Amino acid sequence: MKTVIYVKSAEQVLTVKGASLAPKKGKEMSELGIIEHGSVIIEDDRISFVGPDLEATQYLDSLEGPVTTIDASGKVVTPGLVDPHTHLVFAGSREKEFEMRLQGVKYIDILKQGGGILSSTRSTREATLEELVEQSLVRLNRLLEHGVTTVEAKSGYGLTTEDELKQLEAARKLNDIHPVDIVSTFMGAHAVPAEYKEQPDQYVKLVIEEMIPRAATQGLAEFCDVFCEEGVFTVEQSERILEAGKKHGLKPKIHADEIVQLGGAELAAKVGAVSAEHLLQASDEGIRALAQSGTIAVLLPATAFFLMEKPARARKMIEEGVAIALSTDCNPGSSPTQSMPFVMNAACLTMKMTPAEVLTAATINAAHAIGRADQIGSIEVGKKADLVLFEASNYQKLQYNFAVNLVDTVIKNGKIAVQGGVVLGNQAASN
Amino acid sequence: MKTVIYVKSAEQVLTVKGASLAPKKGKEMSELGIIEHGSVIIEDDRISFVGPDLEATQYLDSLEGPVTTIDASGKVVTPGLVDPHTHLVFAGSREKEFEMRLQGVKYIDILKQGGGILSSTRSTREATLEELVEQSLVRLNRLLEHGVTTVEAKSGYGLTTEDELKQLEAARKLNDIHPVDIVSTFMGAHAVPAEYKEQPDQYVKLVIEEMIPRAATQGLAEFCDVFCEEGVFTVEQSERILEAGKKHGLKPKIHADEIVQLGGAELAAKVGAVSAEHLLQASDEGIRALAQSGTIAVLLPATAFFLMEKPARARKMIEEGVAIALSTDCNPGSSPTQSMPFVMNAACLTMKMTPAEVLTAATINAAHAIGRADQIGSIEVGKKADLVLFEASNYQKLQYNFAVNLVDTVIKNGKIAVQGGVVLGNQAASN
Ligand SMILES: [Zn+2]
Ligand SMILES: [Zn+2]
Repeated sequence: MKTVIYVKSAEQVLTVKGASLAPKKGKEMSELGIIEHGSVIIEDDRISFVGPDLEATQYLDSLEGPVTTIDASGKVVTPGLVDPHTHLVFAGSREKEFEMRLQGVKYIDILKQGGGILSSTRSTREATLEELVEQSLVRLNRLLEHGVTTVEAKSGYGLTTEDELKQLEAARKLNDIHPVDIVSTFMGAHAVPAEYKEQPDQYVKLVIEEMIPRAATQGLAEFCDVFCEEGVFTVEQSERILEAGKKHGLKPKIHADEIVQLGGAELAAKVGAVSAEHLLQASDEGIRALAQSGTIAVLLPATAFFLMEKPARARKMIEEGVAIALSTDCNPGSSPTQSMPFVMNAACLTMKMTPAEVLTAATINAAHAIGRADQIGSIEVGKKADLVLFEASNYQKLQYNFAVNLVDTVIKNGKIAVQGGVVLGNQAASN
Repeated sequence: MKTVIYVKSAEQVLTVKGASLAPKKGKEMSELGIIEHGSVIIEDDRISFVGPDLEATQYLDSLEGPVTTIDASGKVVTPGLVDPHTHLVFAGSREKEFEMRLQGVKYIDILKQGGGILSSTRSTREATLEELVEQSLVRLNRLLEHGVTTVEAKSGYGLTTEDELKQLEAARKLNDIHPVDIVSTFMGAHAVPAEYKEQPDQYVKLVIEEMIPRAATQGLAEFCDVFCEEGVFTVEQSERILEAGKKHGLKPKIHADEIVQLGGAELAAKVGAVSAEHLLQASDEGIRALAQSGTIAVLLPATAFFLMEKPARARKMIEEGVAIALSTDCNPGSSPTQSMPFVMNAACLTMKMTPAEVLTAATINAAHAIGRADQIGSIEVGKKADLVLFEASNYQKLQYNFAVNLVDTVIKNGKIAVQGGVVLGNQAASN
């Protein structure tokens, strides 16, 4: 017999429907498909009904067996949030370095003392697979507590073949033991490790000839990402890495134009990247190139806030027809947060996106950015039953009542995973 | 028999002790009085022991009766947070206006359409006392969920004698029914109401001759506040209002130099204000005057963030010896948040305060700003048993792991009010 959940009488159901084939761009980003006084019915792990309350009761009459009813009055129901860009899997934390930075110490000097990304690489290399899983699980629960039901996770703190694979294995293990779905990205080209400092091209060779083939062969990743930045990987190196990934079936993503305008956006378009990330410094030509190639701009306003940088030009991108997704960028250096709700708040306040646009960017467009829009990102019959119930009487309040977590209930794959704002015991305790 | 709670084996207890006579300024703001592996023992509503684990067990042996033990391993214990500046009591909400503002509509045009503060005044006047209590209770619970155990609440959305008193009565009622303590401030001079637009001095007269005496006589307020700002109340009007308050025993506070540099900081010093608020535009002379007079600067970085304004010059103030407190400014227009943790995050990121300084600013200095430092704001024997347990292994992580609520447990007046991040039923259900 089927398990039936009846999410009853929400103030608003934001279906975000109708964009499973292509991401929403321009004015489409404002189309939330709102059902006032709406209900959703779930059978097993799938959505089987979404519509007005009145029709829901008729549909229910046609079903057999017991029904779990969740009262959604006073709440807004959205698709499960999708976080399409994280560095979820790592060991250690860097709060002491954060304090130094506040006191004016430059990142380059922190690096010289063995801090920064070098410190996360050291901790991640030293950690066992089990330790990586255990430490990352805390963050994964916190993401879930903030409404995330699917998350992308990148490697990139191992920087040796074995340690990169270990990170990807940790992500796979987390996917197995935790309700949140994890989509993996290989990012051996996150930094040039200290031992290759004098011969970065040798490291690129290692990434291309050893890491990518092994990650792909073992089925540990779907995407390949690279940090294209001054002093990290050049445009030329980035292109070689992404093309190598493509040959092995890894779809390209790229950390582009974050600090320096190198032409990362243009490269993203050239290699047909699924998404380009950060884009704080993207040029007008780069933005138009992304629109042309249909590459999704994954914007990370919490990172810009944490680093006190000028945010990406979201309005320009929307004008030019670039589809925008939003993400936490959860990582130990530049964005130690797990709150997609805050990311949406920051997108409104710092990039002047609207409450409707940020919702689209955190659901269907984010699902497109990780190749899952056929399954998640909107509330439509047949899609996975991933839903969030927020304590709010309309969707604008999700952005207006800022910097607090209004998530009350999360349903993942048709099972209640968060109730009364609390992650249910089994997922929290599974470490 | 006494009720005994044993808060056992925290990673760190931040006592913030030793400043009950005068607020902490300059380097003192960094002194947290940290006990590593510390415990706290509570008898009834008071702290009776604070010290290292080893000594706690000896102290416990001297007590009779049952003991409730709270495991604080993996956690940081702080004094209950104090939020010294809120407009907690109001009716309605203004998310539609927020959306208009994001789309570029000017506040002055929103006002012309009857929005802005006019809209909150209308809703607050229309609301009954019970409705005000009910709507404010939701916010009060959320403040508690974020670690606040004492909160200041201002009137200022009534703007008639009856409606101002109604707001203050709602605050008193909330104080009676809810564990969080509320300290009331009369702020009839929050805005010039529409009906006095052409004769603002007549409204000042009403505030001075009718509102202040009645609020004071009925014991409904301890403080008197005024919005000294271009187009609101002049420096001269503000001074008259605050002096009238003083005559009736209401201690002065002042919204000063928020938008325009009018000399509000200087006025605060002149009238001997307990605190001056906002101070985004305070002059060098104004800052030095505050240091001289011992007036506390109550800074509101969440408001600056929400309005995308340049924050106050906290470092300059600390250099000059001004004591800083932090606050949410919780209100329906410019800071619809209830998160003191985020306020501390924003103070670090936008004003370069350190993790130690923001903690001092949100506890003992905030307690001084509302005249309660003899009772709360630090963990010392004899003080009220108001504590927060945060999910963090050191205090820096409270700022590093930003934009999430790490509050696990709140003890208020020796009673557990929040457990596992959830406000316990009795306080939530009391409406
Ligand atoms: Zn990244
Ligand atoms: Zn205020």
